[in-house]
Amino acid sequence: MAIKWINYDQLDASAKLASDTPADLTKVMTAERVGNYSVKMAAGMDYNYAAKNVDDTILKDLQKLSDEAGLIEKFEALYNGEVINTGEKRLVLHHLTRGQLGSKVECDGTDKRAFYVKQQERIAEFANKVHAGEIVNEKGEKFTTAVQIGIGGSDLGPRAMYLALENWAKVNGCFKMGAQFISNVDPDDAAGVLANIDVAHSIFILVSKSGTTLETLTNEAFVKDALKKAGLDPAKHMIAVTSETSPLAGNSDYLDAFFMDDYIGGRYSSTSAVGGAVLSLAFGPDIFARFLNGAAEEDKLATEKDVLKNPDLLDALIGVYERNVLGYGSTAVLPYSQAMSRFPAHLQQLDMESNGKSVNRFGEPVNYVTGPVIFGEPGTNGQHSFYQLLHQGTDIIPLQFIGFKESQQGVDVDIQGSTSQKKLCANVVAQIMAFAGGKADENKNKNFAGNRPSSIIVGEKLTPEALGALLAHFENKVMFQGFVWNLNSFDQEGVQLGKVLAKKVLAHETDGALKAYSDLFEI
Amino acid sequence: MAIKWINYDQLDASAKLASDTPADLTKVMTAERVGNYSVKMAAGMDYNYAAKNVDDTILKDLQKLSDEAGLIEKFEALYNGEVINTGEKRLVLHHLTRGQLGSKVECDGTDKRAFYVKQQERIAEFANKVHAGEIVNEKGEKFTTAVQIGIGGSDLGPRAMYLALENWAKVNGCFKMGAQFISNVDPDDAAGVLANIDVAHSIFILVSKSGTTLETLTNEAFVKDALKKAGLDPAKHMIAVTSETSPLAGNSDYLDAFFMDDYIGGRYSSTSAVGGAVLSLAFGPDIFARFLNGAAEEDKLATEKDVLKNPDLLDALIGVYERNVLGYGSTAVLPYSQAMSRFPAHLQQLDMESNGKSVNRFGEPVNYVTGPVIFGEPGTNGQHSFYQLLHQGTDIIPLQFIGFKESQQGVDVDIQGSTSQKKLCANVVAQIMAFAGGKADENKNKNFAGNRPSSIIVGEKLTPEALGALLAHFENKVMFQGFVWNLNSFDQEGVQLGKVLAKKVLAHETDGALKAYSDLFEI
Repeated sequence: MAIKWINYDQLDASAKLASDTPADLTKVMTAERVGNYSVKMAAGMDYNYAAKNVDDTILKDLQKLSDEAGLIEKFEALYNGEVINTGEKRLVLHHLTRGQLGSKVECDGTDKRAFYVKQQERIAEFANKVHAGEIVNEKGEKFTTAVQIGIGGSDLGPRAMYLALENWAKVNGCFKMGAQFISNVDPDDAAGVLANIDVAHSIFILVSKSGTTLETLTNEAFVKDALKKAGLDPAKHMIAVTSETSPLAGNSDYLDAFFMDDYIGGRYSSTSAVGGAVLSLAFGPDIFARFLNGAAEEDKLATEKDVLKNPDLLDALIGVYERNVLGYGSTAVLPYSQAMSRFPAHLQQLDMESNGKSVNRFGEPVNYVTGPVIFGEPGTNGQHSFYQLLHQGTDIIPLQFIGFKESQQGVDVDIQGSTSQKKLCANVVAQIMAFAGGKADENKNKNFAGNRPSSIIVGEKLTPEALGALLAHFENKVMFQGFVWNLNSFDQEGVQLGKVLAKKVLAHETDGALKAYSDLFEI
Repeated sequence: MAIKWINYDQLDASAKLASDTPADLTKVMTAERVGNYSVKMAAGMDYNYAAKNVDDTILKDLQKLSDEAGLIEKFEALYNGEVINTGEKRLVLHHLTRGQLGSKVECDGTDKRAFYVKQQERIAEFANKVHAGEIVNEKGEKFTTAVQIGIGGSDLGPRAMYLALENWAKVNGCFKMGAQFISNVDPDDAAGVLANIDVAHSIFILVSKSGTTLETLTNEAFVKDALKKAGLDPAKHMIAVTSETSPLAGNSDYLDAFFMDDYIGGRYSSTSAVGGAVLSLAFGPDIFARFLNGAAEEDKLATEKDVLKNPDLLDALIGVYERNVLGYGSTAVLPYSQAMSRFPAHLQQLDMESNGKSVNRFGEPVNYVTGPVIFGEPGTNGQHSFYQLLHQGTDIIPLQFIGFKESQQGVDVDIQGSTSQKKLCANVVAQIMAFAGGKADENKNKNFAGNRPSSIIVGEKLTPEALGALLAHFENKVMFQGFVWNLNSFDQEGVQLGKVLAKKVLAHETDGALKAYSDLFEI
């Protein structure tokens, strides 16, 4: 079947969905529903959507939407190497960094799966040598800290993944070295990190696909300056993660260079060398491989045509229903796991940069809303913060909970008859029902209207496999939503104008209001 | 004049505002406008609103709104000690922690300003003794780390303030000791912090107004357990910040206790003992006093009736215009300062917990939208993340920029003709104009519609005074918005239901869907 790229509002299923009656969560919640409205994810996790405003009719219509829009066919085209990023005329190959879902993808004269695997092997070899003391600093001493220099996709994803596994690695005997991150062009960022590390025993990972990112090159210069002032040779302390055609490749300023390419968008690069270098240095290549396995397992589930067996697709479709039919403007991501503290910030980029667009993949304005605002903090912290608005505010915000039965570190205390971990789980469970069911009260200030939708992903423990599966789940969700909305989810033209104007400001090529603002800052 | 507490939609000015034509930012931006649309803030900062959709007519109508709603009279009533928190029948006195704006407030037989000052003095004395080595651990050694145990308002504000000044203090010779924070009931939070500190040289600050917060008491037990296992006496390592009537007061389990009271809401408590203890220990009492001075100076500006001279009031009113007239559902807070990395998370609680409500202060449902979703990350990081949606998404998100002419640490490099700090400032300036002016392009994927509103707060440097002024600015903004919407911004009944249900889950007093969810987690 030939793929048809058509707008959401031209699909018959979109009109059908708009005529369906949403499930009222104050009425439908039963044990049976909780048991039935669940899909298996990778790494032993489950995606449970019982507390979403869907019923069997709406689920059937979501299946129709998926079939009519050819979502699985579009995914197949993507992983088989078609030019899905039409704006930049590029393939979209991040799935190949963790597995081969379809046919061999040959591009630039290379088998791309083989290319990504080779980079993983090169990184593994390098990291093993660092850990073994075969690659050392100028005094022959082992490196003890890895510092990633990158911004956006070269920062948020790898940083969130590092934090998610840091304490797990420590208690599981696979913590090799600490990682730090420098991203902002604000000099206080680099200065703050450098003041708190031992630069003589630090290895810096410069991450820029193009090798031209302003912030990253500036911070590289900042770090080189600090290394030189400490009497050290920067070339002995730096590696690069970049594309083979960038000025950072084959450059004697770096101990080594590992490669990604134009077919891996920054926000989709955590499973490429961008995440691979820092995570392999921090936790060892075996842990990074387990992370990739979790992602690959989830990717396979995403190829399933039956929406009730495909958690990534179903999550995407329910999100579209909430956005375009129910009219909700934002979504909160709420992991009940302190280790996932920066996971929402990563998803914020992943989702908002991919689908925050007003034109379809042919550059035509669309007549419907697209990507929502994404925000979130870990629970239970959020409960004592912005949950007030989630429960009783005038707008309804769909929620994405994530929780695990076991803690990562296994250290716990029993207070008032339960462990902290049980309390954590009890809280997320209670929140789902408080949001869904509400509670009538004559005092309207204590009244909870309920019917506020959420889903929950339940896992055993936040392991490398679970983390990889979660990452892939949301990547695939965003991809499917982009297909439904007929967007190109893989470019980011919206970030260009600011860069152009910033250069003008620095060159003093401004007038009018822009000059007046520049004057405020005495630029 | 007697204060009238009436709903926003019953004010004549609200109808007038709805009939005004919003300024089109693609047309109005001039150097003159940038110069004129600016209000002085405390600590030498300016609030500039040239890139908001207002003109002189709308500004006059915002003044009418303020006058008709009696916003300044309501603020006067608040700081003079009226029962503004009607739901809980409490005064609202956080302004008294940093100054006396009006008449003496006597309550519970005490002059409340004197009470708060006394706590500051007690904390200062205690902190000075810790720094001087007069209060020491059991081996007679100095404490080197302060660890705050608290959640919500006892965590987010103090943590954001600590991070904002940490590096500044280090380069300015007033860094006394590092601070860490334990908040989440997730046992991985406490375990992770404890694994990375030297408990023998740590002093723990237990913060809970009621002395009954589940997370905080659980984490206290967690910490005590760790101290005992290290052969240490917990009572020699802990202080409490609580109310005088709580079980934590006058308790030999703590070295000392410092007090707040029921008139300081958690999210408004950064300038009380809640922020005072940890910030005074970390940076010394003098720095905390400077922080309070900045807040007090800003509070004074907030008493001004002329909206064009009152930055807190004007920011609030423009926010109401964006929310209720223009219909925008969320607001992004974007500090171009890495030190302010957690300031948006604090504002998220401050704003969403205060004004995320559907009933007015009399418990009657309102017919208009109230508090928006608040989210944000530091720039330039955000530019490489979610700014795509801000520039080209289908929804318009008002923006609050914050920037400083100078960096905190003064360490910088000159690359390509400019320092990092100049690049940082050039970027925020460029963003304002990119959002406001947009840029036409025949390729619609590269088209920027513009007319996306922002304001910017410009300061010299992020000092303790500037930080205090920023904190007070947003506290007052949220307060004024609550007054406009006729809400009680000082209670949080929306967090109660989840707590009740969590207890039922832990007690296994559940059935139906709640039991089914509990079973998913094997509780």
